[in-house]
Amino acid sequence: MADDALFEFLHMEIVAHVYKEQATREDIDKERVTCVSTLELMGFRVGQGLIERRFTKDCPTFKEDLDIMKFLCKDLWSTIFRKQIDNLRTNHQGTYVLQDNKFALLTQFSTGKQYLEEAPKYLAFSCGLIRGALSNLGLESVVTAEVSLMPSCKFQVVIQKL
Amino acid sequence: MADDALFEFLHMEIVAHVYKEQATREDIDKERVTCVSTLELMGFRVGQGLIERRFTKDCPTFKEDLDIMKFLCKDLWSTIFRKQIDNLRTNHQGTYVLQDNKFALLTQFSTGKQYLEEAPKYLAFSCGLIRGALSNLGLESVVTAEVSLMPSCKFQVVIQKL
Repeated sequence: MADDALFEFLHMEIVAHVYKEQATREDIDKERVTCVSTLELMGFRVGQGLIERRFTKDCPTFKEDLDIMKFLCKDLWSTIFRKQIDNLRTNHQGTYVLQDNKFALLTQFSTGKQYLEEAPKYLAFSCGLIRGALSNLGLESVVTAEVSLMPSCKFQVVIQKL
Repeated sequence: MADDALFEFLHMEIVAHVYKEQATREDIDKERVTCVSTLELMGFRVGQGLIERRFTKDCPTFKEDLDIMKFLCKDLWSTIFRKQIDNLRTNHQGTYVLQDNKFALLTQFSTGKQYLEEAPKYLAFSCGLIRGALSNLGLESVVTAEVSLMPSCKFQVVIQKL
């Protein structure tokens, strides 16, 4: 189905555009940081939007943070990436590790270590997406991602207690 | 469903980003043209990608240009914008007018004439998408769009005979 690929293609275009745009500027030193945060912020707003849109329709109640994380790993992940998170772990102190063994935005790369350096480009948007979604579910967080072997990916979410 | 909105939100972010990025540069005179063509080119590549992806799976044969246009108005439009084109007209000389009475990327604006000036920003990507899809179906074209009353929209496709 064409629509399955629509998000992936559009995401590739955005990453390429943001990096190309920055490369033509003078401040090349700051390049990497700026691009990552630009993409992260776009993801954040999209994540917020998705939660807002969804919860104007039906509003589940979550008892605790873990329920919110489960919702994110199952429902939200499926609607965005067409599969659930494969493994969710927590230290029960506000840190969660979400492992996706076949992350949709990395499947277009060849597996192995060849393109590991490129991976962060393609994770920034999704880190923001998680942070934005959680934010609109009442949890402020810091989200980072790590790839050790394509196309599997670990997202670490640290909830910021107020 | 969250995924329905994913494309729309991401599209809004891209438009905002491309315009914001350009506005911070010196060459503000060229601003509008550059932004529109940037978005158009992104759409073109996404349109190409969608057709490539789809036709690696099953490959219909089209007898004539009109069949290709019908495929675009029904199948492709539905998978991207969740509805078909409402009206397709042609002069049988290579010009086609596709009318969408409720174009998905314009539904977030209030109806009427208030935001008409803003509309071209939100049509460039889709013009490119049509052009890219047609290109990979063997038709080179020029695609323009016109809005007279939100959220309805007319795309004009002029096939370039070689």
